[in-house]
Amino acid sequence: MQIKEIIESSKRHWETALPHLSIDCVVFGFDQQQLNVLLLKLKDNAENWILPGGYVLKKEALDDAARRILKERSGADKIFLNAFNVFGDLNRSEGYFTEYDDDLWHKQRFVTIGYYALVDHESVTPVIDASSEDCRWMPIDELPEMVMDHKSIIENALATLREQIRYKPIGYNLLPEEFTMPELQRLYEAVLGYKLNRGNFYRRIMRYNILKKLDKERKGGAHKSPILYSFDKDNYQKALNEFSW
Amino acid sequence: MQIKEIIESSKRHWETALPHLSIDCVVFGFDQQQLNVLLLKLKDNAENWILPGGYVLKKEALDDAARRILKERSGADKIFLNAFNVFGDLNRSEGYFTEYDDDLWHKQRFVTIGYYALVDHESVTPVIDASSEDCRWMPIDELPEMVMDHKSIIENALATLREQIRYKPIGYNLLPEEFTMPELQRLYEAVLGYKLNRGNFYRRIMRYNILKKLDKERKGGAHKSPILYSFDKDNYQKALNEFSW
Repeated sequence: MQIKEIIESSKRHWETALPHLSIDCVVFGFDQQQLNVLLLKLKDNAENWILPGGYVLKKEALDDAARRILKERSGADKIFLNAFNVFGDLNRSEGYFTEYDDDLWHKQRFVTIGYYALVDHESVTPVIDASSEDCRWMPIDELPEMVMDHKSIIENALATLREQIRYKPIGYNLLPEEFTMPELQRLYEAVLGYKLNRGNFYRRIMRYNILKKLDKERKGGAHKSPILYSFDKDNYQKALNEFSW
Repeated sequence: MQIKEIIESSKRHWETALPHLSIDCVVFGFDQQQLNVLLLKLKDNAENWILPGGYVLKKEALDDAARRILKERSGADKIFLNAFNVFGDLNRSEGYFTEYDDDLWHKQRFVTIGYYALVDHESVTPVIDASSEDCRWMPIDELPEMVMDHKSIIENALATLREQIRYKPIGYNLLPEEFTMPELQRLYEAVLGYKLNRGNFYRRIMRYNILKKLDKERKGGAHKSPILYSFDKDNYQKALNEFSW
């Protein structure tokens, strides 16, 4: 951004948004092979990438702000976002824009709320907004250089996801309607970051009782006729809400 | 508070704290019978109770603010607090103090960060601060009238705790060093809000491998010589960090 643009956007933010508070969105998508996260690259910001983020309008509920920000910055719409943590250490955002006056919006201390979402990779077509020069899926195990603490925000979101995978079924938002057992296993491995034993995985996932075996097979793959599954929505929902005690 | 005091505290907060951001602490304690939460009653605020809460100083990390606030407002010190959710709907805090000017600190919109902790009931002696007339443990199933959305913040913290009890051992911070199996079961029942089958509970908890059976018995109770247990710290920690996939 040009100096004039930055000063104007500072003025506009002071008028319309809650100061010192920001939102950053960690959107995970699975492309059948690896887990990816949706990132932006700002214009004129060298090689540094950022999470889709922004500010909360004075008259806007926090959750609405997260959805609006994600849509504006990446094109991703109708995404179910959840706050997963807050990042409020000192000096995580201040100390940039040092050449500007101290009352510049962007120079302030910001406490950021981390939101995250799991989405079907195919359902999002990244759109580049006015202040970015790129917007795309990047694999979580090959993250580029990122601004501020954004890399550790992603790691924290991933830790949350890994914790949830211990006791909740996942996959409903990350896989296509129909999938094979190896594809589901590959998703779990991509989230956990290590290989799983095939037999153990099969037994464990069947215990959840969330899969429907379909009466058809995938054609034309390298493997011979793999069986297709889909999620049993009711049982999946039940498993999400159930207490095992 | 008197009008003059309120206006002075408003001025002080604008100078020292981050506007529009607050912290509320949900501290759970177990007294061998029921799960309690630490609450305050403000002076001159009729019958309404509040969570120990406050604001983040401009030069204070968020987590440090939570610990300081809890200590100042309730006397509870050295408590391990964790952010569990954010409450940022419109009109959750604004719309009070209507008789004051619009620039009154207390009249602003606040997004609040919910922190929670599990503590040994005995380790906290509630202390009443200058702006409160009471500070005490209240049972979660008989909560008094509370201000704003504080009751639903407690319910949300309890939901988090109930979710965690599904896959993580709990009790280490909530029980005395040595305890009986019925006491541990009572804790789980108090958190979950329903009775558990004794045999199932025993088998399930033993599967965690987190208990050490002590070579002594509780004397003088109504029941005959109940066996005492303590947590095996290493295994407890291992169970906290372990992935079951």
